[in-house]
Amino acid sequence: MKFNKKLENIQTYEAGKPIELVVREFGIETKDIVKLASNENPYGCSIKVQSAVSEIVSHMALYPDDSMTKLKNALTKKYDILDENLIIGSGSDQVIEFIMHAKASSNSKILINSVTFAMYEIYAKHVGAEVIRTKSQKHDLDEFYELYKQENPDIIFLCTPNNPTGDALNAAAMMEFLEKIDSDTLVVVDGAYMEYAAFKDETKAVSPKEIVAKFDNVIYLGTFSKAYGLGGMRVGYGISRANIIQELYKLRPPFNITTLSLEAASVALEDEEFVNNCISLNFKEMKRYEEFANAQNIAIIESYTNFVTLSLNEGQNSTKISDALLQKGMIVRNLAGYGMNALRVTVGTKEQNSRFFELVLELL
Amino acid sequence: MKFNKKLENIQTYEAGKPIELVVREFGIETKDIVKLASNENPYGCSIKVQSAVSEIVSHMALYPDDSMTKLKNALTKKYDILDENLIIGSGSDQVIEFIMHAKASSNSKILINSVTFAMYEIYAKHVGAEVIRTKSQKHDLDEFYELYKQENPDIIFLCTPNNPTGDALNAAAMMEFLEKIDSDTLVVVDGAYMEYAAFKDETKAVSPKEIVAKFDNVIYLGTFSKAYGLGGMRVGYGISRANIIQELYKLRPPFNITTLSLEAASVALEDEEFVNNCISLNFKEMKRYEEFANAQNIAIIESYTNFVTLSLNEGQNSTKISDALLQKGMIVRNLAGYGMNALRVTVGTKEQNSRFFELVLELL
Repeated sequence: MKFNKKLENIQTYEAGKPIELVVREFGIETKDIVKLASNENPYGCSIKVQSAVSEIVSHMALYPDDSMTKLKNALTKKYDILDENLIIGSGSDQVIEFIMHAKASSNSKILINSVTFAMYEIYAKHVGAEVIRTKSQKHDLDEFYELYKQENPDIIFLCTPNNPTGDALNAAAMMEFLEKIDSDTLVVVDGAYMEYAAFKDETKAVSPKEIVAKFDNVIYLGTFSKAYGLGGMRVGYGISRANIIQELYKLRPPFNITTLSLEAASVALEDEEFVNNCISLNFKEMKRYEEFANAQNIAIIESYTNFVTLSLNEGQNSTKISDALLQKGMIVRNLAGYGMNALRVTVGTKEQNSRFFELVLELL
Repeated sequence: MKFNKKLENIQTYEAGKPIELVVREFGIETKDIVKLASNENPYGCSIKVQSAVSEIVSHMALYPDDSMTKLKNALTKKYDILDENLIIGSGSDQVIEFIMHAKASSNSKILINSVTFAMYEIYAKHVGAEVIRTKSQKHDLDEFYELYKQENPDIIFLCTPNNPTGDALNAAAMMEFLEKIDSDTLVVVDGAYMEYAAFKDETKAVSPKEIVAKFDNVIYLGTFSKAYGLGGMRVGYGISRANIIQELYKLRPPFNITTLSLEAASVALEDEEFVNNCISLNFKEMKRYEEFANAQNIAIIESYTNFVTLSLNEGQNSTKISDALLQKGMIVRNLAGYGMNALRVTVGTKEQNSRFFELVLELL
């Protein structure tokens, strides 16, 4: 059987190892495994969310409310935007997928940062588009602008804070950059970790409302998978001008969010106190990583997220170290696949972080 | 902003009215609304599934096990197939989406039944493919073959039992038809309601295992949304030869099934007794629809599903009747959009069906 040619360039995506797989591969008991690989909220999700979901498990037979009214009301209130400015996806991933299929094709170029979220490239390949990368590891807006002028991309992705490095753009500088982009280039501002950045440093805080007010070619992405502690429930969103949202809506499969996910995300927005506590604890624990890195003479990129990137020294091999950690039940992300001799480690709970320091010290 | 041309032909999908919308529009209380519009299992889902999901609500923060080992093991055991023959989608809808993007393009033709599941056409439009329809309302395999020879489609969809009519193909006749199709045309056998058909009449029962053994160009689709009572959880699957599954996998977004959905579907397969009881009750209640239709001189298509299609007589307008029912809190599916003066009614519980008969009698 022949398939579309563009499939030839697509590798099947391999997700980070889930706890279940480590249990099976290494025979380590679930309770002894620490997963600091996927930037999940180590404090879980709000107990209010858990109760609300438990209360409606008998509704699992009913198709989701495809108008998503409850969740849309909660999100439009949070961001002070209109319904017409919002689209909800199965993770912000799915909004990226809609964007790619709506705007790009095999004739398109997509401009992204040298090291950034892997799904931009994966979805670009789905439509056969060419991916242009910056050279700079950090988002360098001058380099982005130069490449934009040179390559005329259909879509530019800015990931702030950036995954997997943790650095974040200055919001004002980014807004200035956006002013210079012509209105037929779609700019995606991916704020998956924005709650963390805004907490740590308000100069990093991007306002989706301001983006909608100022630009007719920019879309902001957010997610419930990180600070809101709902990585397992697959809910993300895009915020943009109505005409852009309308086009993306055409590509949205009906019932793309489960009944329980809609409830979980809606209730999560009612418990911002939980989220703020988690973020506060996150940065308290992050200090320990900074101290650890200093003590070990390991470079650490200043992080505005719930993870840290440890750039290892010569003689320290990120693949060897992450493999050795895995065999001890400690799952972190090896960044060798991104061309970096580095480990990305989710800032976990106090106990999880202590365990990481203990185990990694034996391997450095 | 300019978008891809193919979007011009896509209408935004409007799902059937959920209960929430009727509550808002007509001010009817939730408890007074009966929804027989989306072919959900009126008996809900197994209590074992509800308990299992409740027990893991604290896991919502963790990304789903993307290897889906537990659910895959349960499904490969049920169907006596290998892992490599299985792909799991966010509803079987998503598998249809993968198929369309893998095999079809703007140069493709897609052959479907005159009246059938709406998503085939919607996803065909996503890739700009042309949709060819039979004339016959029932699946007529001779007409399918004739159009296949004439049009040379890339994909053929057979929906058995068919939605929204409820009739089903003879499985042996379908297997003979499949023998005649060349190996570069992909045939999709959509068995979303197969559990019902197989229960009622074993000559309708299609065996996914046999399909995989015999054909290198056929994919079988199944779902947890109907008999298994998990419409809100978005889990479906495709079963085919490994080389086809591999190509579809390239288009699968990571984490396409939520943590709670994976658990729900896995446990649902452990309680086949619940499913069989529901199906048995379904056909007992369906007899009442047949009696009702006979008494009212309304034509009813013999159904192998959990819904019935009532073909109304002249002077009975399906749009008027379904609108009037809606205002009384009874949601059914008007088939006017399919060019039929007919109502599709999910066979509900005894009480729900009695209520339908009572209300519709006032309107005929």
